[in-house]
Amino acid sequence: MISRRSFLAASALPLAATPPRLDAARLRNRIEDLSVFGRPRGGTFADGVSRIGYSDTDITARRFVMNLMREAGAAPRIDAAGNIFCRRDGAENSLPAVLFGSHIDSVPDGGNFDGDLGSLASVEILRLMQEHGLRTRRPLEAVVWACEEATFRGNSLNGSRAAAGRLRPGEIEEVWAGLRKADAIRRIGGDPERIAEARISPGRYHTYVELHIEQGGTLARDGVPIGVVDGIVSIDRHDVVIRGMANHAGTTPMADRQDALIAASRLTLAVREVVTAEPGSQVGTVGHLAVTPNAANVIPGLVNLTIELRDLSSDKLDRIAARIRARAEAIAGETRTSIQMTAGLRNPSALADAGVQKVIESAAHSLGLRARRLPSGAGHDAQMMATVAPMGMIFVPSVAGISHSPKEFTAWEDCAHGADVLFQTVVALAA
Amino acid sequence: MISRRSFLAASALPLAATPPRLDAARLRNRIEDLSVFGRPRGGTFADGVSRIGYSDTDITARRFVMNLMREAGAAPRIDAAGNIFCRRDGAENSLPAVLFGSHIDSVPDGGNFDGDLGSLASVEILRLMQEHGLRTRRPLEAVVWACEEATFRGNSLNGSRAAAGRLRPGEIEEVWAGLRKADAIRRIGGDPERIAEARISPGRYHTYVELHIEQGGTLARDGVPIGVVDGIVSIDRHDVVIRGMANHAGTTPMADRQDALIAASRLTLAVREVVTAEPGSQVGTVGHLAVTPNAANVIPGLVNLTIELRDLSSDKLDRIAARIRARAEAIAGETRTSIQMTAGLRNPSALADAGVQKVIESAAHSLGLRARRLPSGAGHDAQMMATVAPMGMIFVPSVAGISHSPKEFTAWEDCAHGADVLFQTVVALAA
Repeated sequence: MISRRSFLAASALPLAATPPRLDAARLRNRIEDLSVFGRPRGGTFADGVSRIGYSDTDITARRFVMNLMREAGAAPRIDAAGNIFCRRDGAENSLPAVLFGSHIDSVPDGGNFDGDLGSLASVEILRLMQEHGLRTRRPLEAVVWACEEATFRGNSLNGSRAAAGRLRPGEIEEVWAGLRKADAIRRIGGDPERIAEARISPGRYHTYVELHIEQGGTLARDGVPIGVVDGIVSIDRHDVVIRGMANHAGTTPMADRQDALIAASRLTLAVREVVTAEPGSQVGTVGHLAVTPNAANVIPGLVNLTIELRDLSSDKLDRIAARIRARAEAIAGETRTSIQMTAGLRNPSALADAGVQKVIESAAHSLGLRARRLPSGAGHDAQMMATVAPMGMIFVPSVAGISHSPKEFTAWEDCAHGADVLFQTVVALAA
Repeated sequence: MISRRSFLAASALPLAATPPRLDAARLRNRIEDLSVFGRPRGGTFADGVSRIGYSDTDITARRFVMNLMREAGAAPRIDAAGNIFCRRDGAENSLPAVLFGSHIDSVPDGGNFDGDLGSLASVEILRLMQEHGLRTRRPLEAVVWACEEATFRGNSLNGSRAAAGRLRPGEIEEVWAGLRKADAIRRIGGDPERIAEARISPGRYHTYVELHIEQGGTLARDGVPIGVVDGIVSIDRHDVVIRGMANHAGTTPMADRQDALIAASRLTLAVREVVTAEPGSQVGTVGHLAVTPNAANVIPGLVNLTIELRDLSSDKLDRIAARIRARAEAIAGETRTSIQMTAGLRNPSALADAGVQKVIESAAHSLGLRARRLPSGAGHDAQMMATVAPMGMIFVPSVAGISHSPKEFTAWEDCAHGADVLFQTVVALAA
């Protein structure tokens, strides 16, 4: 349980004997309210949401959330990148604030928990504090990051990358689906000409905390209500080009073939073998594969595929990539193809702050909730914030590990538990 | 050498002491002349040809060939399916004629030998006979089949299938790329309302012979100038649907995955293993494979692929398909996916007539050319003609086995050898 000593009376009202808990029913209502923005026509909550960053749907949903901020007595402010901040003053406003939040944009055909839970729980915390006249020592700030999911080809974490000063040179001039990124940012109230001002300098915030669904299935499978993220994995992507010889599928004897898809199949299996050959939670995936000419009666002459590797340890990823590369060379020789494997940009791993992890664990334990440390296999705005402030993340179980799908679901009780832990964590950090 | 006794003087001219040989230079010129119809803009002979059946290019090329027929003194006749026939009377015109020919349409980005060689050599034979005033006992007919290559989705051998009475019910009402097949046939001078009249009844022709490039590489590799086709393989196509579970490539542990591409890779390798596990010239190919959703960061949830099997023996194909099916079941169990394998239509094998094979071999030997029997792994109009007449095919070497490509090439000397063997064969059959 949160200690009464964490709070300072914000007004003349006396402090309640027992510190408040978040209103679980209201949090659920908020999530259900938000779900209508981007819901398929004629659908229900269970049909999920398409709320693409910068879209009209995103814009109306942002307006809804900004109204919730106003109801919580915290006027929203939109930064130059389109991120939405709101603040509740502390007793010592010259101290760096505790920042917490998430995002509300979704993938196409996504679910109603990824991002939404953390964003709405954060605003709800400010509302609760206002309702109960509570104040912390440090100021609290809630944030809704702009466009966390990839919208512009190959981009994601758009708002938090701007805040971390990690936009690529010229990035806001890029065009996707007919829309310049600068114009997209302007649509949601950002100011692309002054995008550099969105940057958050190290030290400006005391800490950053994000509540999010796990997206994997480990917490749900093992019945653990709270995950304490120890880090967000590094993501390495490799582009592979396999060149064989396209030829007639009827007239070319088996022994004479240089079949690029045979080589690709062996490489796909080799990726899995190498990744699972050592203990740990590393993953490796061939998710994209394209065959040329891709006709039933032509031996494949060309295959393009991607290999994606994720782990907290960059050293382990380097070791695994080297082993896959060696396997690729052997396969190329045996299949008389050429295999070219090019490392794409590495999305570096981000470690959670040890102190913040402990505060999250204490919060969970004080609420009688089991907690487990685990890495995040997915990318999050928190990995950008980790470059400018001590970072922590709270995970709640995803039923069957399904996410980026209308079937994404987290039990309402688990949502409430996560919000309670977030509340206690930020109050403890701000004390 | 052809025997002078094979010919009867067609006119008052005396028979030459030595029977004529085809004019190799003129044959080459004809092939080069034809290559301009469908040549890439600004290209040369080596840039190949796109002469899609029923296209404007096909129509102008057909006009060119019909003029060659007229120059050979054989007026062209277009049947209801658009096939072009021309005839040189024999001494006994009530006897069934010997028919020979090929096609002049090509695949997109095809070569200048597939079909063209056999078509132009056939017309050249009639021209040579006219020039030398030669006549055979039976009439001779040259044919250019309409649209041999697949144009309408999943269709090929269009003209010869009509001649064999093997069009599907309603087939000419099908639409591809905006064109009804009936309208396509009408474009090239056919008469779709009377398509049934294109059918050739068994016994109408004495024999059918087709000269064609091997398309495989075995004759070229072993330096054998003439192939005597013993049969055209059966083609079985199986459509395979593999269903796993699409999921997040970062958050789903390796042990929890149901990766449809892992299953597809194992099945692709199993096809090759099963096909090569027993001796023979059977082939098996996974030529088409499509992944859904096909994103680098999503575990593949669905794969569609095709398995194509070819052999002269349908029993062997059945045996191989059964083994692949058993492997698919095991793979589905081991990868926790479902694999559904549906047999498509079987394109049955066609055996060459034993007598015609012997005549071809004798012709080759009399010209001092080595000959080898071999199956055709590719489909040909000859397989349709085999259903209505004793059939034979003559193959000439394809350099490096390349076909359906601008790089397709047969040495001019080999083209001439093939045409000579065709000439001697049809004359012997017509004697």
